[in-house]
Amino acid sequence: MTVTIIGIGLIGGSMALALRQNGLASRLIGVEHNEGHAARALELRLVDEVQSLEAAVMASELVVLAVPVNVLMSLLPGVLDLVKEQVVLDVGSTKEGILRAIANHPARGRFVATHPMWGTEYSGPDAAVAGAFTGKACVVCNSDESDADAVDLVERIYRLLGMHLVYMDAHDHDVHVAYVSHISHITSFALANTVLEKEREEDAIFELASGGFESTVRLAKSNPAMWVPIFRENRENVLDVLNEHITQLRKFKACLEKENYDYLRELIEEANKIRRIIK
Amino acid sequence: MTVTIIGIGLIGGSMALALRQNGLASRLIGVEHNEGHAARALELRLVDEVQSLEAAVMASELVVLAVPVNVLMSLLPGVLDLVKEQVVLDVGSTKEGILRAIANHPARGRFVATHPMWGTEYSGPDAAVAGAFTGKACVVCNSDESDADAVDLVERIYRLLGMHLVYMDAHDHDVHVAYVSHISHITSFALANTVLEKEREEDAIFELASGGFESTVRLAKSNPAMWVPIFRENRENVLDVLNEHITQLRKFKACLEKENYDYLRELIEEANKIRRIIK
Repeated sequence: MTVTIIGIGLIGGSMALALRQNGLASRLIGVEHNEGHAARALELRLVDEVQSLEAAVMASELVVLAVPVNVLMSLLPGVLDLVKEQVVLDVGSTKEGILRAIANHPARGRFVATHPMWGTEYSGPDAAVAGAFTGKACVVCNSDESDADAVDLVERIYRLLGMHLVYMDAHDHDVHVAYVSHISHITSFALANTVLEKEREEDAIFELASGGFESTVRLAKSNPAMWVPIFRENRENVLDVLNEHITQLRKFKACLEKENYDYLRELIEEANKIRRIIK
Repeated sequence: MTVTIIGIGLIGGSMALALRQNGLASRLIGVEHNEGHAARALELRLVDEVQSLEAAVMASELVVLAVPVNVLMSLLPGVLDLVKEQVVLDVGSTKEGILRAIANHPARGRFVATHPMWGTEYSGPDAAVAGAFTGKACVVCNSDESDADAVDLVERIYRLLGMHLVYMDAHDHDVHVAYVSHISHITSFALANTVLEKEREEDAIFELASGGFESTVRLAKSNPAMWVPIFRENRENVLDVLNEHITQLRKFKACLEKENYDYLRELIEEANKIRRIIK
């Protein structure tokens, strides 16, 4: 199968590696507006060739859109204009807006909205990882709006990549990822800024940083070109969760201010229940 | 050298393993008020024997206090009452209060206040890890208040464990750890509570949790018996940092509310500077 990957970065590059490794892609075409990334993707052999979007889509059976969600919004209608039999999938982190934007497109059925739940704080073709998706969940949104054969192909691909599929309405997806992904990034960015702010006064502050700090702050290295559009697209859900998170932090603050250590202990015991969820 | 470890949990147990592995301890005595932990520490061969605090201190050349900081506050004066030539060190996460409490103790010079910068979210003897401290920083506080030979011994031990030493005033230590350790735990506890709260409405919320979520929330599994006393001891510094962190989060909130995506981008670019600090 000839596959086009639009956007050969962290996710697109990892997808290219996975599709090749599983024998799903016999020919991989990259579409990439960043010339440095395009050259690097060829060097790393993530793709066999780089072409214009139009030529690539016309030559392919499967088109994977792996661009920031704002670029996805602007590119997808044009891609669907070019589509006849091809199947198009995206891997974006928000779903409701994009699906509303193409709801009435004549080729809507050829598009399958997916979100493989994997990523790192790095970006660009050098961030691509082989075997990235194995064992992870992949969300498929509003699959009843896609043609059955397109859904079949996409399901088959993700299963071959070792992912388990979760079916979800686009609205529910966006609420859930605000809780289990987007808020983690905001807390991490804000934590980095809290400590970097202090560092202006005190040089030695990072000398003592250990594993716990690194773990909570590593997402703060994430790329704004990816994350600003996600927060923008998922603004209302992210604001809801952020408000709730600030409320939770204020409970810890109130415990300390009032020296209510019994309630502080309760809050921590409550948080410990996360053990049910993560090992 | 005969070494007593008071509190054979995550840190005490790991310290026991390290002291044995490096040939520093020929005989290891444990003191542990939790009978289950005492039995398990013997089973795991973390210590050779378990004795009463008094007998253990009298029989040892080195005493390591690895108990929660509130227990440390109550035990340390009594331990120092028993001390003649022995060297006593603690590994607690806060320093100013404990050093004030023993400032005028006749055996103050035999005590060296240290904080090896390593830990995990687990606790108890089963959480002990071999090689835990290698390559990490260890803070030594107010070393000029300790006898020179006591400091020499403690420095030699930590260096043999592969740690690099950082010397710091107790007050500065407590400010710094509020930034690079304590606040990470509060954000993680609060993040867990934010998401667990939502889970009451929506079953599937954790189905999509991936590596980023796990990384920011893993500290939320930490033991309240250790952390409530730390927050209590370091209350003022933790409140300062928590207020600053809430201020930083409010900036993200304001950006989203006002749809000021340029400033949102700036905030994220600022946070990206954490790359200088963590790889």
